[in-house]
Amino acid sequence: MDPVPMTQINTRFTRHFGLSTPVALAPMALASGGALAAACARAGALGLVGGGYGDVAWTQREYKAACQSALTTDRIGCGFITWKMDEDARALDWVLGLPSDQRPKALMLSFGDPRPYARRIADAGVALICQIQRLEQAAAAIEAGASVLVAQGAEAGGHGMNALNGRSTLTFVPELADWLADHAPETLLLAAGGIADGRTLAAALMLGADGVLVGTRLWASQESLAPVGAQDLAMTTDGDGTARSPVFDILRRKHWPAPYDFRALRNPLHRTWEDRIDALRADPEAARADYDEGVRQGDFTRAHATAGEAVGLIHDRPSAGVLIARMTQEAVALLGNAHGTFGLDGP
Amino acid sequence: MDPVPMTQINTRFTRHFGLSTPVALAPMALASGGALAAACARAGALGLVGGGYGDVAWTQREYKAACQSALTTDRIGCGFITWKMDEDARALDWVLGLPSDQRPKALMLSFGDPRPYARRIADAGVALICQIQRLEQAAAAIEAGASVLVAQGAEAGGHGMNALNGRSTLTFVPELADWLADHAPETLLLAAGGIADGRTLAAALMLGADGVLVGTRLWASQESLAPVGAQDLAMTTDGDGTARSPVFDILRRKHWPAPYDFRALRNPLHRTWEDRIDALRADPEAARADYDEGVRQGDFTRAHATAGEAVGLIHDRPSAGVLIARMTQEAVALLGNAHGTFGLDGP
Ligand SMILES: Cc1cc2nc3c(=O)[nH]c(=O)nc-3n(C[C@H](O)[C@H](O)[C@H](O)COP(=O)(O)O)c2cc1C
Ligand SMILES: Cc1cc2nc3c(=O)[nH]c(=O)nc-3n(C[C@H](O)[C@H](O)[C@H](O)COP(=O)(O)O)c2cc1C
Repeated sequence: MDPVPMTQINTRFTRHFGLSTPVALAPMALASGGALAAACARAGALGLVGGGYGDVAWTQREYKAACQSALTTDRIGCGFITWKMDEDARALDWVLGLPSDQRPKALMLSFGDPRPYARRIADAGVALICQIQRLEQAAAAIEAGASVLVAQGAEAGGHGMNALNGRSTLTFVPELADWLADHAPETLLLAAGGIADGRTLAAALMLGADGVLVGTRLWASQESLAPVGAQDLAMTTDGDGTARSPVFDILRRKHWPAPYDFRALRNPLHRTWEDRIDALRADPEAARADYDEGVRQGDFTRAHATAGEAVGLIHDRPSAGVLIARMTQEAVALLGNAHGTFGLDGP
Repeated sequence: MDPVPMTQINTRFTRHFGLSTPVALAPMALASGGALAAACARAGALGLVGGGYGDVAWTQREYKAACQSALTTDRIGCGFITWKMDEDARALDWVLGLPSDQRPKALMLSFGDPRPYARRIADAGVALICQIQRLEQAAAAIEAGASVLVAQGAEAGGHGMNALNGRSTLTFVPELADWLADHAPETLLLAAGGIADGRTLAAALMLGADGVLVGTRLWASQESLAPVGAQDLAMTTDGDGTARSPVFDILRRKHWPAPYDFRALRNPLHRTWEDRIDALRADPEAARADYDEGVRQGDFTRAHATAGEAVGLIHDRPSAGVLIARMTQEAVALLGNAHGTFGLDGP
């Protein structure tokens, strides 16, 4: 059994979803499988299965595993990449079509317009979580009936806004908190991008978030489905060692729409192409062969290891339960002791 | 007289420099003049005059004004752009050559290797503050004898690391705090980039910073030397409305070394060129004429308005003293009430 956090942090988010800590597992495609989502749920967090591009068999297997392995299905949800649903929404339909007691407690959509899915999700009685990257996307998410908005900063691992359009978590969260206070005060707000320990969790709460969505930190955990070789490399990479670009999307033949791109470890193959994106697009085949070979061999100097700037705060790979307990306790100590630490009574 | 903060936050940084709040004014070239630095010093913060590119006459005038206008010179310092000092360090020499009771309490260097200046600054008995953008720059700053490291995230206004190399404040600060704890535990740490209110100040302290360096928020203030037209535009621009690129450095004929670039409001002239940097470099003259005309007319659809993502948290333009008191009190309330706000005693 994973340890249950001894101390708790109470926010609107924990109360809404019956959590003991204001943490959600990011629905990381191919990493957030059933075991990881269940471990998070058992640790008192919200466990979102990474439905990603909407592979039906993967989603069915991992979502069922999550529900079976969690002590309760109450803290289990699922996430999908929105623009991919526009092409094929069968995995979304499957999860919403489950008997009501087996349905996810929350459905997260990112990277696209959530409004076409609003009705289906509401009719299924499932809470909608929308991840956004810019303030200008907030109105559509509210229109779609989102109960929770996730403000994702460009420091995040995986997909997000490209350099010209990206926001940082530190400025985006308080600005979106102000916007929500004016336009949709019932809507909850999570911070995503760079949250990996008690310090970053406490900081997110100070910024006005009701909780956090954690990717990279939980990607490097015992229950993660990410390749262990990639996780090992991340553990010895500091936070300077990631970059955001379209390189790996081109190499992987993923047709991501502008203005999204992808943060991963900045490995030698990435460095070869990061300044020559046009050339790579024009003639990608040799680089793709190199990349494919890297994937086959588990060689992460060529294959991608998907992690954000938070890798610099990662030095081990314990179970998700230990990670969640640790970050919660660290945040409780920081927040609870702040009065004394900073001599707030005066000199 | 500016109001003095009623409540105080005590950290190693406030104790080291005799401050009543752990805030430093960023030495913003052409914006942080004597009046702004003095107002910050009077409000209990560290006021750094923006020596920028090292214009001797400007530095002499504004530094003297700061010392005269502040009630004490104890909280006055000065900052320069390091790579520009490599070409012409006369302004630096002037400020270090003042009689010892008139010398700055701190000298901040950013954007280049501080080591060639270490001896001169130490011999003058002035504390060295080094602003860095990546973890890999920390060792050189420590070697240069820095008393304070500033971790600058890419959300910052003005110059900083470009997209491929930039870090965000949220991940960089705790990672650098860990590095300093291992390598130079006496060295103080400030967070820069996105700090503009009590929430972001409190967040920075939770991340492990001893204080913050504030640019954009104080750039929009009564005492700022920034053009009022630029400040007015910033007040109606949200945080989505800035971008980082080399566009304005090319237009201004500033020869910034890689990998630095510049965050400013993303105005129409910026948008015209941001995706065509190579073309702009190859044939900049027409765009420069357009830009110069914008500057002459105070037309900020063409001229640059230097601000970071924190513009989204700016809705007014009070005096620096009011701003510092407000952000301090807001942070004190957030930190002091955290125990109750988050129900840290359990459910
Ligand atoms: C390995 C990995 C895969 C991800 N896949 C998805 C995904 O399929 N859908 C999604 O909405 N977000 C995805 N994300 C982004 C997360 O939702 C989240 O925004 C991000 O992980 C937060 O930043 P952090 O990595 O610094 O914690 C992924 C992130 C990582 C690290
Ligand atoms: C108008 C402006 C001018 C700046 N000029 C300088 C400068 O001359 N030297 C320097 O070290 N930093 C300069 N900076 C960067 C600041 O030192 C600091 O890193 C930044 O303002 C912090 O982020 P913020 O703008 O979000 O507060 C400037 C920033 C702004 C907004």
